[in-house]
Amino acid sequence: MADESLDCGGACSGCNVEGCGSRTEAPKPTARKNVKNVIGVVSGKGGVGKSLVTSLLASEMARKGFKVAILDADVTGPSIPKTFGIHGQISADADGINPAQTESGIKVMSINLMLPQADLPVAWRGPVITGILNQFWNETNWEDVDYMFVDMPPGTSDVFLTVMHAFPIDGIVTVSAPQELVAMIVGKAVNLAHDMDKQVIGLVENMAYFKCDECGKDHYIFGEPQGKIVAKRYQIPALATLPLDPTFARMCDEGQIENYDVEGALNPIIEQIEAVAARKVAAE
Amino acid sequence: MADESLDCGGACSGCNVEGCGSRTEAPKPTARKNVKNVIGVVSGKGGVGKSLVTSLLASEMARKGFKVAILDADVTGPSIPKTFGIHGQISADADGINPAQTESGIKVMSINLMLPQADLPVAWRGPVITGILNQFWNETNWEDVDYMFVDMPPGTSDVFLTVMHAFPIDGIVTVSAPQELVAMIVGKAVNLAHDMDKQVIGLVENMAYFKCDECGKDHYIFGEPQGKIVAKRYQIPALATLPLDPTFARMCDEGQIENYDVEGALNPIIEQIEAVAARKVAAE
Repeated sequence: MADESLDCGGACSGCNVEGCGSRTEAPKPTARKNVKNVIGVVSGKGGVGKSLVTSLLASEMARKGFKVAILDADVTGPSIPKTFGIHGQISADADGINPAQTESGIKVMSINLMLPQADLPVAWRGPVITGILNQFWNETNWEDVDYMFVDMPPGTSDVFLTVMHAFPIDGIVTVSAPQELVAMIVGKAVNLAHDMDKQVIGLVENMAYFKCDECGKDHYIFGEPQGKIVAKRYQIPALATLPLDPTFARMCDEGQIENYDVEGALNPIIEQIEAVAARKVAAE
Repeated sequence: MADESLDCGGACSGCNVEGCGSRTEAPKPTARKNVKNVIGVVSGKGGVGKSLVTSLLASEMARKGFKVAILDADVTGPSIPKTFGIHGQISADADGINPAQTESGIKVMSINLMLPQADLPVAWRGPVITGILNQFWNETNWEDVDYMFVDMPPGTSDVFLTVMHAFPIDGIVTVSAPQELVAMIVGKAVNLAHDMDKQVIGLVENMAYFKCDECGKDHYIFGEPQGKIVAKRYQIPALATLPLDPTFARMCDEGQIENYDVEGALNPIIEQIEAVAARKVAAE
């Protein structure tokens, strides 16, 4: 969280402390960081496909020619490097940390790019993780980015609160799965985002159905899709649906997610994200 | 975490502070709490079925005639009350908090039994959540329990560390799904458990396959099962496999999970848990 007790003399434009309650002027973009739009991908519930949706949205935006970045805020369960097949460790110099880049040029910052071995745990409590996230945001040489996607961990504790308070989040994409149980927990994250005056711009219902490639039958493995009900209940403008597709799992495991073509399935969400960005430009 | 700086004069047997580094004598069972065996159900990764496995293991143990309890440690994403169909709020009196009970008598403590509405979020940082967990453990009238299952949230941050340090965990059951990406993150939790000298007694590979009820084809939606590889890599004694079964989702949503018969699928894990309990009795 931002430190609002800084003895700063009100020099807001040169200050990088995000979310400061005393800010009177926006910070000037620096060579290190000129991130225009920040979109959080949240769920509350784990395993519904936040990282998949983050990766697909980022890849789609990169295909459209935008400069894209992903900040992997799931510090204890980071998936992003593997889904994009990024190996090795990132470098740092006097100017800051240099993010890794995917095949199509998406800049990525993740704790798993700092560990010598992918399955090494990080056993850190909230304040340490909060410090790491602030470093990811402030000390990475992001340079010019049109859209940054923040892949959030499950839950509504430290990381959720830190990202929502201290990062300049422009909007949230939430990810759900058909089960009622999942919808209930996703509802917790959406309710909290509303309480914190953050705009929820879209819902992706993942794992909505599975089509048998032998006989063509559609299976609703996690129950009947209920994206429309959830979107209506929480007044979420855009809705997209993704199937339970073995190709997703395979391409994530092979680090090839940016080569997957969702064939427009995420367009309702992409359009809303671009609309949020356009409204921001118009308001400036 | 346990407060090791208590000015206690070494009165260990009457003290309830768990995990105290200065303890010289085991605490005497109280009327409030005589929990014989505590099993953590962990994963590292969300959405692989920790709550499902917790519920199924607890139900199986209750069917065998044991006194069973579930402590739902997933404070920001609690699933247990819904899977068992427990509604309403729990009561408390001068003696402590009275846990809810399922149809078959499993005692349950979960934050969602304290909220007026199931989708209300809890926006608490680590220290508050840690305090809640200690209350769940210390101030609940658990009375006699043969097996308590602790349903852990995803990740290896505050809750994981608190439960591992401060609860008398006898063993861990870990839950995975076929995807390599999942195995990597589950590996983080297993490595951390090993680092903390906690015994990992079994692995449940959930969502291992899906059988089409129309044509009978087996689908490996999340990739080829790799439970054997993961169990061998991390030297986990017991392995059980569960399919991706629409009935699980439906029975969780209907609060009927304790009526699901896993037909012995979890026996390898159940046997290991009973073996851990037997070794403990033998060592006393």
